Amino acid sequence: MQNLPFGIFSTQKLRDRRAGVAISDKVLDLKAVSKAGLFTGPILSKSAGPGGCFDQGTLNSFASLGQPAWKEARYTVQHLLSATESILRDDHQLQADCLVPQEEAIMHMPVSIGDYTDFYAAKEHASNMGALFRGKENPLCPNWVHLPVAYHGRSSSIIISGTDVRRPRGQVHGGGEGPPTFQPCNVMDFELEMAVIVGPGNADGTPIPVDQAEEHIFGLVLMNDWSARDIQRWEMLPLGPFNSKNFATSISPWIVTLDALEPFRCSAPQQEPEVLPYLRETNRGNYDIPLQVAIQPEGTQQPHTVTRSNLRHLYWTLPQMLAHHTAGGCNLRPGDLIGSGTISCPAEDGKGCLAELTAGGKVPTSIGGKPYRFLQDGDAVTISGLCEKDGLKIGFGNCIGKILPARPGPV
Amino acid sequence: MQNLPFGIFSTQKLRDRRAGVAISDKVLDLKAVSKAGLFTGPILSKSAGPGGCFDQGTLNSFASLGQPAWKEARYTVQHLLSATESILRDDHQLQADCLVPQEEAIMHMPVSIGDYTDFYAAKEHASNMGALFRGKENPLCPNWVHLPVAYHGRSSSIIISGTDVRRPRGQVHGGGEGPPTFQPCNVMDFELEMAVIVGPGNADGTPIPVDQAEEHIFGLVLMNDWSARDIQRWEMLPLGPFNSKNFATSISPWIVTLDALEPFRCSAPQQEPEVLPYLRETNRGNYDIPLQVAIQPEGTQQPHTVTRSNLRHLYWTLPQMLAHHTAGGCNLRPGDLIGSGTISCPAEDGKGCLAELTAGGKVPTSIGGKPYRFLQDGDAVTISGLCEKDGLKIGFGNCIGKILPARPGPV
Repeated sequence: MQNLPFGIFSTQKLRDRRAGVAISDKVLDLKAVSKAGLFTGPILSKSAGPGGCFDQGTLNSFASLGQPAWKEARYTVQHLLSATESILRDDHQLQADCLVPQEEAIMHMPVSIGDYTDFYAAKEHASNMGALFRGKENPLCPNWVHLPVAYHGRSSSIIISGTDVRRPRGQVHGGGEGPPTFQPCNVMDFELEMAVIVGPGNADGTPIPVDQAEEHIFGLVLMNDWSARDIQRWEMLPLGPFNSKNFATSISPWIVTLDALEPFRCSAPQQEPEVLPYLRETNRGNYDIPLQVAIQPEGTQQPHTVTRSNLRHLYWTLPQMLAHHTAGGCNLRPGDLIGSGTISCPAEDGKGCLAELTAGGKVPTSIGGKPYRFLQDGDAVTISGLCEKDGLKIGFGNCIGKILPARPGPV
Repeated sequence: MQNLPFGIFSTQKLRDRRAGVAISDKVLDLKAVSKAGLFTGPILSKSAGPGGCFDQGTLNSFASLGQPAWKEARYTVQHLLSATESILRDDHQLQADCLVPQEEAIMHMPVSIGDYTDFYAAKEHASNMGALFRGKENPLCPNWVHLPVAYHGRSSSIIISGTDVRRPRGQVHGGGEGPPTFQPCNVMDFELEMAVIVGPGNADGTPIPVDQAEEHIFGLVLMNDWSARDIQRWEMLPLGPFNSKNFATSISPWIVTLDALEPFRCSAPQQEPEVLPYLRETNRGNYDIPLQVAIQPEGTQQPHTVTRSNLRHLYWTLPQMLAHHTAGGCNLRPGDLIGSGTISCPAEDGKGCLAELTAGGKVPTSIGGKPYRFLQDGDAVTISGLCEKDGLKIGFGNCIGKILPARPGPV
């Protein structure tokens, strides 16, 4: 009753994709709720009818309506499901029409993603990766403490949790003077991330002020930015990662709103040196979201947790990312995806990717008593996130992907 | 009759956006041609009816149909407009319905762009920029001769020729130990590019072989990848350009097909060292497309040509770009935009951006007798392209943008 995340689902019987809200072991079918005329608030009574914002294959239209609409939907759903409200409680046919067992729901991409941006907002990750890629003397580039570094990613290959991920082939260079080879990636990694789904967005040329940025966050999902480190190392100079990232990025299906996360607001790391005024926040904060990554090699009985981190460690907050992204005039559109970058934290098991956990493969970690460096074919990677406080639980579910062997391919 | 480029237009009277073909000073309204039942070929008799591929606000659906459909449309249009064919020639009402004077046509974005990628495929540009950004000792990164370097760009801020471009504000660092400032871009540049509009595209995980890549090229447009060099210099390490590019990218409205360009096929620069097998082409070639850039400062009487280059100089060909882009499994979708990177050539006036033309501002060029370094407010930049041979002309029209002053903004 507190989480109420939004997603897009279908079932064997209900073939058309539609909007839903997860409630314990059920999904509330918002298309059916709309059809029954139960969205009676000022915004959704107009926007949620047939063909309206819940009767579409994506949540882009609902995301574009903004915070007042999201709050209205949340209020209506809470009201409908409250013990004292009889409309749904006492109408068994309506219950059957509106509530679907979660195991019957087939989850789909919650939004059509126009553009996907990935930030690099955790200081531990940027320092660890900088040390690996450029050496320990200057792990952080000079700009890193002044602006949230980011790059544009690939929208077309973003996939929903549960979709298998094929190991890419690509150019790899062993160092020295010889030519590169084209081969299956040999240094396959996950990246533990979370991502913003953008709400209304901004017009081209009109920046989003940092103190208004939360109004443009429809909600958060878990994300795994699969990375082919050997391809990345060779290709990324001077314009950044390309084929090492664009083969697949997985997201979890349920979008958790900031309203649901409000009880878990917490402080964010202090920034030193002080940032420029357009990045200064009146109420700076993060969210306390414990995150885990588990790997289950094929043929083993259970997943093995390799990483425990938390969104609270992000040096650059979500509002700072949106403010910086739009500061030069770039427009965000409803449904755009904005990744946090890998969320590493200072703890020894708090590193958000295998490159960090194994010092670039030099110091293996251990799974099932065996040394483990990078992802093997058949390995399933599960990212999960669960906030808990005073009996209140807000879960993100899972973001899962399993590695398939590389295709036979050109040399 | 030979060019027949495709675009999306409306007029004051015909408010719905629709597909058109440019023919001398007219636009043939393909929606009207469809409505009159004149697409009688095997593919378009099915796909071009009401609500079909020409009765939409974009050409994505037509692009997805592939080469056979593009050739069929071209054949039908050539047939309809031939002197010996009476259907259109003798029916004045039909002529009035189908042919619109080009000056009445309002041009729109020809496709909805899912993803935008920009390559870096001209050796002169990569060398010149490498020398400016990293020093003259090693202007080309070691990977450059082995793979076509590229980065993902921003789709949301791609605009149609004629749209003004607002000078962005952003973080700039003057060098040394001090902090950066947030200010209007002071080193504003154009980039002379051409871009592929993708046709059918490929499924996730299924690379496009280099010898089949032309089947996935719906056509070409001119492109100006506006660049804020001072913002770029500070932000681009280690993940590539971001806010220095994502405020605006302009494209020309008419998509010229490879069928129209066939007479202008020419050889491409020899590649040394030899590339890996997945990038080796059976019939390697470029297109001989002369390109110009002209700048007209506000208050002056005429544009001043600053650059003369040619697509033929690209070291990496368009098929090599598509093959590399998909080699790791990345999927391209109909309507995706793939830029060539700045097209510089060895000639002194053959440099495709002001950073190169003025050696980073150190050696000004001259416009109207005055020294000129970077774009000023009010300057209009026009990129044009025109192929000529034996009396045959294939024109790309213009890609125009005018610089507006920066908004007053946060510090």
